[in-house]
Amino acid sequence: MKDSEQIIRNIKLVLAYDGSDFSGWQVQPHAVSVQGTLASAIGRLTGEKVLPQGSGRTDAGVHALAQVATFATASRIPAENLVKALNDILPASIRVLEVSEAAPEFHARKSAQAKTYRYRIFRGPICPPFLARYVWHYPYLLDEEAVRQAAETVVGEHDFTSFAAVDPEKGREENGEGFSSVRQVFSSGWERQGEEFVYTIRGSGFLHHMVRNLVGTFVLAGKGTLKPEDVRRILKARDRAAAGATAPANGLYLVSVEY
Amino acid sequence: MKDSEQIIRNIKLVLAYDGSDFSGWQVQPHAVSVQGTLASAIGRLTGEKVLPQGSGRTDAGVHALAQVATFATASRIPAENLVKALNDILPASIRVLEVSEAAPEFHARKSAQAKTYRYRIFRGPICPPFLARYVWHYPYLLDEEAVRQAAETVVGEHDFTSFAAVDPEKGREENGEGFSSVRQVFSSGWERQGEEFVYTIRGSGFLHHMVRNLVGTFVLAGKGTLKPEDVRRILKARDRAAAGATAPANGLYLVSVEY
Repeated sequence: MKDSEQIIRNIKLVLAYDGSDFSGWQVQPHAVSVQGTLASAIGRLTGEKVLPQGSGRTDAGVHALAQVATFATASRIPAENLVKALNDILPASIRVLEVSEAAPEFHARKSAQAKTYRYRIFRGPICPPFLARYVWHYPYLLDEEAVRQAAETVVGEHDFTSFAAVDPEKGREENGEGFSSVRQVFSSGWERQGEEFVYTIRGSGFLHHMVRNLVGTFVLAGKGTLKPEDVRRILKARDRAAAGATAPANGLYLVSVEY
Repeated sequence: MKDSEQIIRNIKLVLAYDGSDFSGWQVQPHAVSVQGTLASAIGRLTGEKVLPQGSGRTDAGVHALAQVATFATASRIPAENLVKALNDILPASIRVLEVSEAAPEFHARKSAQAKTYRYRIFRGPICPPFLARYVWHYPYLLDEEAVRQAAETVVGEHDFTSFAAVDPEKGREENGEGFSSVRQVFSSGWERQGEEFVYTIRGSGFLHHMVRNLVGTFVLAGKGTLKPEDVRRILKARDRAAAGATAPANGLYLVSVEY
């Protein structure tokens, strides 16, 4: 009965990363992913081959302030020691902020109740080189009040097909709830922070490219290409072609995941 | 007499750059330098082969908030148009902040009266990934009051041989004043800014590695390895081996050059 003595722990990590130099969260054969880099670091510590499961994928160039991931391990390394041990191995572009032991049924993606994303637009004429990786530089004319109004229209429960990347496979896996593209948006608003115009959205879950497609569409309202209230019509169209272009990845941050 | 009609203008640039992905300011055969990248951009606009002259070199990984450089050109592109034209060509890691026409005798290095450098140390236990390229992460015990006191001792005119890289060739070129290692330091002080401990030094000129070697030595005072007043003895020794190690490049910023 030796095997039964082995206690498998469900370890929960909270991570920040600069997505600039990664192919995205998800492990890929010939690319450097956050998930793969983290898996290697955990493997070096525990001697086990694990693939940590995140609360969701982030694309290449997308950052995280507090991504959540879990992995199962038979290792007895205390959770509090894992923060320093993992950070000593990981590149400086990924930091483990917290480690705790979660209940066996806790699942980083399926247990998530809400997520918050942020999108940073730099409005000044010259973007400081130190911000280039972290914001979308958009110095052109923009009616920021129209952008704000457009953002307000997506609060509530909607079918976000018009704002989802045309890859149902990814959308389905991301939400883990079958084919539905219905999501609840709890809040959606823009705020001026000095030379930055910053969007924050909190919702029940997000389809692939959803936040970037929303931002790209709100900006069309700011340019006068469409009216803020047209966003309602775009939602109803359930057609990706009805919405605006996908905003660049580097302005996007996964801010937090709530359980 | 066609040539005499050609007016050569002396163009002054003020530049910010993220030094992380450059081999340093100075052009080098098989590396991507700031100077070389800038020379290519100017060449594309003017059709001329020029090598812009900076106020001084910055090493690989060292950043600039306002480096000054000049180049001579027969091009008639108005100075005010060059800001946008150069920024459209340059990578986002180099930004031209200002362009103006300088007097013919103006020389970015020789005309400089004072320079200010800054050094950022991140003191918190976990360095946010977004700061990793821009600070020295030093989370260890440090008597910050001793560091402050050590920094005060270098104000005034001193021979900084103990704090200069052991490459007289570079030192000579950098200061352009023959072999002297005497420099005037006008101010030298540390300031707490949240989780950062920030050093600012303003002086008549700086030897190669001088700021980083000063920081490395001040930190020794903070660790208790030496006393703040020992810095005076180190200055008098005129021996690089008497001082501390060179602090990492990525915490250093050329803040401004005064003329």
